[in-house]
Amino acid sequence: MLFAVIPAGGSGTRLWPLSRAGNPKFLHPLTGTSDSLLQATVARLSGLAEPATTMVVTGVAHAAAVARQLPALPADNILVEPAPRDSCAAIGLAAAVIAEREPAALMGSFAADQLVADVPAFQAAVRAAAVGAAEGKLMTIGITPTRPETGYGYLRCGAAGSGDVREVEEFAEKPSAERAAAYLRSGRYLWNASMFLWRVDVFLAELARQQPALHEGLRRIASAWHGPHREERIGEVWPTLPRISVDYAVMEGAAAAGLVGTVPGNFGWNDVGDFHTLGDVLPPDEDGNVVLDADDTKGEVILHDSANVVVVPRSRRLIAAVGLTDVVIVDTDDALLVCPRERAQEVKAVVDGLRERGSTEYL
Amino acid sequence: MLFAVIPAGGSGTRLWPLSRAGNPKFLHPLTGTSDSLLQATVARLSGLAEPATTMVVTGVAHAAAVARQLPALPADNILVEPAPRDSCAAIGLAAAVIAEREPAALMGSFAADQLVADVPAFQAAVRAAAVGAAEGKLMTIGITPTRPETGYGYLRCGAAGSGDVREVEEFAEKPSAERAAAYLRSGRYLWNASMFLWRVDVFLAELARQQPALHEGLRRIASAWHGPHREERIGEVWPTLPRISVDYAVMEGAAAAGLVGTVPGNFGWNDVGDFHTLGDVLPPDEDGNVVLDADDTKGEVILHDSANVVVVPRSRRLIAAVGLTDVVIVDTDDALLVCPRERAQEVKAVVDGLRERGSTEYL
Repeated sequence: MLFAVIPAGGSGTRLWPLSRAGNPKFLHPLTGTSDSLLQATVARLSGLAEPATTMVVTGVAHAAAVARQLPALPADNILVEPAPRDSCAAIGLAAAVIAEREPAALMGSFAADQLVADVPAFQAAVRAAAVGAAEGKLMTIGITPTRPETGYGYLRCGAAGSGDVREVEEFAEKPSAERAAAYLRSGRYLWNASMFLWRVDVFLAELARQQPALHEGLRRIASAWHGPHREERIGEVWPTLPRISVDYAVMEGAAAAGLVGTVPGNFGWNDVGDFHTLGDVLPPDEDGNVVLDADDTKGEVILHDSANVVVVPRSRRLIAAVGLTDVVIVDTDDALLVCPRERAQEVKAVVDGLRERGSTEYL
Repeated sequence: MLFAVIPAGGSGTRLWPLSRAGNPKFLHPLTGTSDSLLQATVARLSGLAEPATTMVVTGVAHAAAVARQLPALPADNILVEPAPRDSCAAIGLAAAVIAEREPAALMGSFAADQLVADVPAFQAAVRAAAVGAAEGKLMTIGITPTRPETGYGYLRCGAAGSGDVREVEEFAEKPSAERAAAYLRSGRYLWNASMFLWRVDVFLAELARQQPALHEGLRRIASAWHGPHREERIGEVWPTLPRISVDYAVMEGAAAAGLVGTVPGNFGWNDVGDFHTLGDVLPPDEDGNVVLDADDTKGEVILHDSANVVVVPRSRRLIAAVGLTDVVIVDTDDALLVCPRERAQEVKAVVDGLRERGSTEYL
């Protein structure tokens, strides 16, 4: 059994206007069922972690919604960050709290807003990574690339180790198109999907080595976690923690020190990064159209002579498309988005524009 | 001065979901100003007809809205049909009522839902047609075709007569694409825009000759028009009148008898038949985008890297387009339409489908 940690943050601006700061991506049923991405993330860990060993780290704005969506989780397993401090503080808090309960526990960290098509293959990858983690590595599960994607970071792998485990030589940033194509050709690179497995003692030792202030702050918070002064302590210490990602803070330095391993994953991973990829991951009708009808806010959708259209109906209105191909329509109560599927990533530009102009009611 | 008659009927299904049976095309401000198409139709007759000699013929469902939109018209000039009986009954009623006041009056009939860019040229055409009408012809104003349009009927013209007037030899139905191209090449065909000028005595005589029952019914209604029994008489007679268009009932037979003349019109005529043509007729921004912002139901519209998009915002919501080209977005409170501009005519198929399924709330 594993301690499964699910950092649940970020608003998913490329899924605007569905995903908002107040109702972010991971809370939405973008899974083809009534499950939210968060609920699906917990469900796919079934058999690896149980509710008592599953934790979600989230912000004050979403703690209540997370608690409602995951009624089986003990309330104490929902760790609420007083303010956003990036992924190292979030994951480190969970590691430190787990270490208070079980100092050498095996911990896995899985993003709250991804989809996996082949759950048995995913679980097999986790089990393979757990072997490396038990041996003292900071393990990742890398995704075997299927295209020269420029939107993800990459892991450069060394030779295959024992079993499925390979060494990670370097964490590479999002590449140029040219470089991404070279990565794909080389066969040495995996996508960094932010899935980690380690013993909490190993992770915390590496955190202490590379980020002593962050480690000390988290240790002080964790030591008060199960006593009467939790709120006081976290309220005092948390604001002083540095904002830094776990990749920058720990994993890159650990890779340089030869401490990071990976297991390549081939399980239909999808980060649901935008409405185009959402359309690729959900079951289409015979014309390739995808209508996301997961909840009761769906109105009637008429797709007349249209193909490969992605519709997210969330306003109970009638939506009619005539002669459309490869277009995204997202219809919410206060905002409508229409764009070609291939331009779906650029939705972020609209959100950025709204933010610049202070149109916060739409963010 | 002219008696101007404006038949205001039809729901404009190709402008759905903006145009509805309960709120048809001619009542909407599709003119680039706050004027509705109906108001613009009256305004462009300024100087040719005055309010006392301007009449609207409309159905019971829209009489009140017409009266509100045209406060300068005497209430008695709004002729209300008890039931739809097609254009010959509507236009014939107006002719018969006018004849009661002035037996040889000059009458023009102009559809309520068209746009004209060059009003002085339009008025010059009307004045030229009035010459032919005074001489005893049933006159039309035909539109010089600018493309091989298959959506309109055509007038086949004979040789030029005195001044601008040409004889109309035949009313031709909507042609095939091949035939429309041949019409355009020949230079002998004009679009039939349903604009007529005649002396009411000439028209009524021709109606009596070709449609004696319809003529007799209208005569009986008109004879009671200015007395106490108008409602009783129209209620009794109107339902017995045949449903027939003025083209079939009168104009085709009159053309065969050599009684029809026409004046070619070149005044930027547009029938606002669908959202594509609406986009062509309204002033675009520098990227060719048209946002119809005529009334207070408009929400914010963000067109990011988009061109030649037609947006009709009618729900006060934020509308964002990203990377779109040549697409129509019509956003109303209960229904949304998205389609490529070149497919805009096919919106009718959606309306037909809704009607077949009995979804009358959207019609």
